[in-house]
Amino acid sequence: MLLTVARALGELADKLGQPTVLGEITAGVLLGPTLLGRIAPDLAITLFPAVGPRATVLEGLFLLSIVLFMLVAGLEVDLSNAIRQGKTAALVGIAGITLPFALGFAAAWIAPSTLGHEGESSRLVFALFIATALSISALPVIAKTLMDLGLYYTDVGMIVISAAIFSDLFGWLLFALILGLMGADTAHPGGIGVTIALVIGYAVVMLTAVRWLIHRTLPWVQAHTSFPGGVMGLALATALCGAAFTEWAGVHAIFGAFLAGVAIGDSPHLRNYTRTIIRQFIAFFFAPLFFGSIGLKVDFFAHFDPVLVVIVIALACAGKITACGAAGIWAGMPRREAWAVGLALNARGAMEIILGTLALRYGVINERLFVALVIMALATSVLSGLTIPVVLRRAKSRKIEDFLSARTFAGNLKSSTMLDAINELSEVLSPVAGVSPGELGRAVWDREQNASTALGNGVAVPHARLPATGGFCLGAGISQRGIDVNAPDGRPAHIFFFFVSPRNDDGVQLELLADIAERFTDPMFHEKLSGTTSYTEFLAVLRTRGD
Amino acid sequence: MLLTVARALGELADKLGQPTVLGEITAGVLLGPTLLGRIAPDLAITLFPAVGPRATVLEGLFLLSIVLFMLVAGLEVDLSNAIRQGKTAALVGIAGITLPFALGFAAAWIAPSTLGHEGESSRLVFALFIATALSISALPVIAKTLMDLGLYYTDVGMIVISAAIFSDLFGWLLFALILGLMGADTAHPGGIGVTIALVIGYAVVMLTAVRWLIHRTLPWVQAHTSFPGGVMGLALATALCGAAFTEWAGVHAIFGAFLAGVAIGDSPHLRNYTRTIIRQFIAFFFAPLFFGSIGLKVDFFAHFDPVLVVIVIALACAGKITACGAAGIWAGMPRREAWAVGLALNARGAMEIILGTLALRYGVINERLFVALVIMALATSVLSGLTIPVVLRRAKSRKIEDFLSARTFAGNLKSSTMLDAINELSEVLSPVAGVSPGELGRAVWDREQNASTALGNGVAVPHARLPATGGFCLGAGISQRGIDVNAPDGRPAHIFFFFVSPRNDDGVQLELLADIAERFTDPMFHEKLSGTTSYTEFLAVLRTRGD
Repeated sequence: MLLTVARALGELADKLGQPTVLGEITAGVLLGPTLLGRIAPDLAITLFPAVGPRATVLEGLFLLSIVLFMLVAGLEVDLSNAIRQGKTAALVGIAGITLPFALGFAAAWIAPSTLGHEGESSRLVFALFIATALSISALPVIAKTLMDLGLYYTDVGMIVISAAIFSDLFGWLLFALILGLMGADTAHPGGIGVTIALVIGYAVVMLTAVRWLIHRTLPWVQAHTSFPGGVMGLALATALCGAAFTEWAGVHAIFGAFLAGVAIGDSPHLRNYTRTIIRQFIAFFFAPLFFGSIGLKVDFFAHFDPVLVVIVIALACAGKITACGAAGIWAGMPRREAWAVGLALNARGAMEIILGTLALRYGVINERLFVALVIMALATSVLSGLTIPVVLRRAKSRKIEDFLSARTFAGNLKSSTMLDAINELSEVLSPVAGVSPGELGRAVWDREQNASTALGNGVAVPHARLPATGGFCLGAGISQRGIDVNAPDGRPAHIFFFFVSPRNDDGVQLELLADIAERFTDPMFHEKLSGTTSYTEFLAVLRTRGD
Repeated sequence: MLLTVARALGELADKLGQPTVLGEITAGVLLGPTLLGRIAPDLAITLFPAVGPRATVLEGLFLLSIVLFMLVAGLEVDLSNAIRQGKTAALVGIAGITLPFALGFAAAWIAPSTLGHEGESSRLVFALFIATALSISALPVIAKTLMDLGLYYTDVGMIVISAAIFSDLFGWLLFALILGLMGADTAHPGGIGVTIALVIGYAVVMLTAVRWLIHRTLPWVQAHTSFPGGVMGLALATALCGAAFTEWAGVHAIFGAFLAGVAIGDSPHLRNYTRTIIRQFIAFFFAPLFFGSIGLKVDFFAHFDPVLVVIVIALACAGKITACGAAGIWAGMPRREAWAVGLALNARGAMEIILGTLALRYGVINERLFVALVIMALATSVLSGLTIPVVLRRAKSRKIEDFLSARTFAGNLKSSTMLDAINELSEVLSPVAGVSPGELGRAVWDREQNASTALGNGVAVPHARLPATGGFCLGAGISQRGIDVNAPDGRPAHIFFFFVSPRNDDGVQLELLADIAERFTDPMFHEKLSGTTSYTEFLAVLRTRGD
């Protein structure tokens, strides 16, 4: 029942352009004490009992779900790439943790009762928790929002993702330590000192030795065991063993799973196919169960405190947006892009909710603050999707059709690899761009190796910035057979938009990426386009999804 | 811990050419009371407690695992294809249920105490259970064995699979009714009559109305929800709802999940991609957990009764092999092939173990008989893989190299679909086979539509029987880009072996299929072959995996 409703509402939220987690949580709110418990208390108790063996089993299943979800969250973290991004990302990441942390700590320390502290836990632990809760961000939601807006593969997007990775890693480590502090009964028998040493030791070993070891053994496992079962078993077993270790060490199982995910996901030997199976199954089975379960535990109506909600949202936004925006401007980013980075990193999404769930369970916060945190997490996530386009002044944005022409249209690409396709498209675009095909191909291929430009849903957007080019030039190509482009959904790309822009392109690149992402939200749209045989027909089909 | 050891031993069993389930069960035996419980009882209790909340959670997780495993087992059932197979398959299927059923019932009724009946349950229920236990077979293990032997796509293979589907459907329905009879306390409050009516009603509705409904709605779901999450959510939610319904009706949850799987899997709209994600994740995460858990519950050493084991194995083999073999001969099959069918259907594998687990839990059988049933299930599975080649006299079998020639080698296929590839290869083989390319292509394409000839691991073997051809003719082709061929592992095929045989080919087709399957067990072997540029090089690489 929970899975059905959570999946259905998750799809609905997705259709409305909102984070899936919003729909999944709503499912729990509807089936839990907030709604069903009021209308039909007997049915609610029968479906989701609060005590007894069935409650225990559900609790265990939800725990497994969140552990596996954190494994996937870890797999998405591209640590090597984040490290490569350099100064701006590091600055934004560090500012995005420290300032919100300081602000949160100060607020909670000075006025704990305003924030719902009720004296059942120590003021220090409470202040540390609020500080951490305000400083983390939510990589999966941020990545999704950027993709929906077509910003994922832009410079802005890369800085945001790298900064989010830094703040995530740091924030979770911090929270692990706080959990060690607050869960005196669950902590390791050796005391809090041993717990902290074990957690830091685990993080270091995972991100160095184990990361290296997995990178080395993956090819062997891939070659000598069933595919993809061998690698999948290895990934899941490593994550569960890591989870068991951190649980034993005195903090929560999710840290172990998250760091194991980072260590495994960083290896380029982990094939996209394996990654996709793990990610899809967990995202569509375990994640709806966990996020659905949140609404089952708390009465969102009875514990809704409007004042507290406003305070929490204000604190969260003030700290994060200011810190990241200012850091971006200081690092030399254009003003509007810096604020967009701040808004993007402000999304708290799933991670905040997980944090809140644990804090509620360990008695650090009460239901009122928990409800406020969940609403804040959802509100900031929805907000960033709505405000970023405004800040980037994307109202009267330019469209694909404004730049496409029959001259730069390749109706039947012959290549079977991304490199070949880039070279084939470079030949087509070269006369218009006024750059030699070789130079064009190299620039785009360099950019492609930095991060894949596959958007998923059968479309890829290889591109580059080249000072030598006269103006913004766009080409398009169709590959009937599809080309493997390392897409996030693992599917081959059939439609290619290929473009080159001068150093300063007045934001065309961003607007065009957004336009493409928007038109290709239908997972089958590329099939209709692949079926066209002429430029006119291609344009006609493309227009069916324009505004 | 359980997942790690079960996956590792499952891989080991696979490497040794044995069913994976053998390794997974061994993992449980090692970690359970049989071994770890003897060596380190404290550790065994800590890891897998018998009582308390952790035991409850594990119990719930194992239940979810088996429900999802049965969903996958149901998805593999190609009901429409089984119905098309006609008389021989139906005869073998019916004989393969009725005779073992009669034999089992008679033996258990006449000598219940010899078989371990201890009077705690009624003699009738006990006899009915033994009868059912001896008459079901194990579709997944049988399919795997046939694939390993390269027999899956032969006439023998198709008859075996179809007969197994009939016997499975019937056997499970029978067992559901027996469960209703024996579990008086779990049965529906309306009594056993209501339970039986509900189960039969559920089966009928699922296999007709729901099957039709799913077939109709799948394209819509595919187009309007996230891919593959929408369909996956639908499949999993349907299976869980079905499981909940049959559990409520008074029989076990697995029936609901199994029949839901049959209803969903029968639709050709269910894409291979979605199917693969569900199958792979469940096969490599949930299945090892469930089969591993079996060894945790029972002390296989203390309850090992050699006499009972021998009796159970003898009864199982006698009934099944005789019935199926005789029915095959009666239906006009060649003698040796008929016995091969009998041996194949004799494999009990996972299904017998699931049945035994439930019977043990409901108190119908004791531990001694349970252990004997598990050993019988594993022994018959291992046996069929070992004996079928002997019966089919496959000792001095012919190899690919005996038939391949440079004339019929296409080093660079240009096609991007299976139909095109078949036509392209028909052109190459036509002069040698003495049949027109059109006729050849049509025959192979007809055969292909009956069931895909993709073996997985990047290889496909399109073929046909044509009375017009002079003798057995073999061609080979390489597709650099890979062609989507509906492979069991969802991967595109790069290597094609294309052959045509006369009506009576003296078993060459079977031997060649076996040879190909054997050489392509390494999931990456096709990549090495794709890299070759000439016929000589192709042959050289091919020989590296010959004997």
